[in-house]
Amino acid sequence: MASVAGPELGGGRSQRGGRRPGESGTRAAILAAARRQFSMLGYDRTSMRQVALEAGVDPTLVSHFFGDKQRLFLQVVELPFDPSAVLPTLLAGPRRQLGMRLAAFVLEVLESADGRARVLGLVRAATSEPEAARLVRELLTKELLVPLAAAIDDDEAEYRAGLVMSQIVGLTIARYIVAVEPLASTPVSKVCADIAPTIQRYLTRRRQEPAAPAVGPA
Amino acid sequence: MASVAGPELGGGRSQRGGRRPGESGTRAAILAAARRQFSMLGYDRTSMRQVALEAGVDPTLVSHFFGDKQRLFLQVVELPFDPSAVLPTLLAGPRRQLGMRLAAFVLEVLESADGRARVLGLVRAATSEPEAARLVRELLTKELLVPLAAAIDDDEAEYRAGLVMSQIVGLTIARYIVAVEPLASTPVSKVCADIAPTIQRYLTRRRQEPAAPAVGPA
Repeated sequence: MASVAGPELGGGRSQRGGRRPGESGTRAAILAAARRQFSMLGYDRTSMRQVALEAGVDPTLVSHFFGDKQRLFLQVVELPFDPSAVLPTLLAGPRRQLGMRLAAFVLEVLESADGRARVLGLVRAATSEPEAARLVRELLTKELLVPLAAAIDDDEAEYRAGLVMSQIVGLTIARYIVAVEPLASTPVSKVCADIAPTIQRYLTRRRQEPAAPAVGPA
Repeated sequence: MASVAGPELGGGRSQRGGRRPGESGTRAAILAAARRQFSMLGYDRTSMRQVALEAGVDPTLVSHFFGDKQRLFLQVVELPFDPSAVLPTLLAGPRRQLGMRLAAFVLEVLESADGRARVLGLVRAATSEPEAARLVRELLTKELLVPLAAAIDDDEAEYRAGLVMSQIVGLTIARYIVAVEPLASTPVSKVCADIAPTIQRYLTRRRQEPAAPAVGPA
């Protein structure tokens, strides 16, 4: 399987001499196997050796291309969307419906098989051991919290973004991992309507303000 | 270490003949080792064999007393408080401050070393693999969600209790496991004041109601 033709992840980086034909395919096969194993097994139980086995390559190739397990993880762990493309759209539009737009987007991601697998991989990694938690923290901070906070324009913006993340992560676990009922089987539109005001309040409500207005249809 | 004198967990159950002196001490040593390993390593990486090693007993004794890993887990995994003692107190008092009382209690538990270790053990177990997630779901449903829902007295009570749990679990992960800043280092009183209205709303707010009132000092 070492010569399986995968997406050309290494495309455009062929400046190095001596690169074998099929190298990008090998890299892609390793990444696909690693993505699957980190997502299904978590950080701890994923090993370079098992990734190589599933990718059908020699284990030394995994270290050759990706170094150690931590670096392989960083190549694989990624958000199921590109924040720099998504956030501007979500942040545009009426401020008082920001919570609803974010909640709807997050739930749309979590309801898709691919999106859910990636988020679960992140959560599993973060809860498995301190080193993985640190990597996830850096990823989330850099890719989500800082850009979101920049858009809020508030002196507690990063704290507010952290509160939003807490509700989103908790919903992921309660609805999709632990799957407590009836939350797990409640229609997504209803869950969205109930989570959105929380996100709205964390992002925009000022201290001592009576309350955020109800978030209704546009 | 097999004869280490631990708390008499087996006390009052000596009706079985042939019980060796020191058996309750052995059980206690096994439980202490299992509690530590499930909490620190998670469900996957904890093994009956390593538990026996840490407890200083023969591995066959662990199966003798506790059966398999799943049953050992159920003996060890427990909430850091007794819901039947705590919930009535939390649920008494003004309904409109219920969110604040619950948030304050949860944060008090999470800020204590022992409470935090137990909750982290639960979360790690729940996110590690489906079997552990099922056990945690059953524990939380039976011990927390159903009693809380019974007290709310609403036709969506269990759904509401699940939403509350989602915020609490998410806060646990964001503040104490992934430790995103500045949420992780924000004073507990501030976090409590910001989480409480969320819990209040999930528990008591009716549909289409404008908003829950601000939760202020009593």
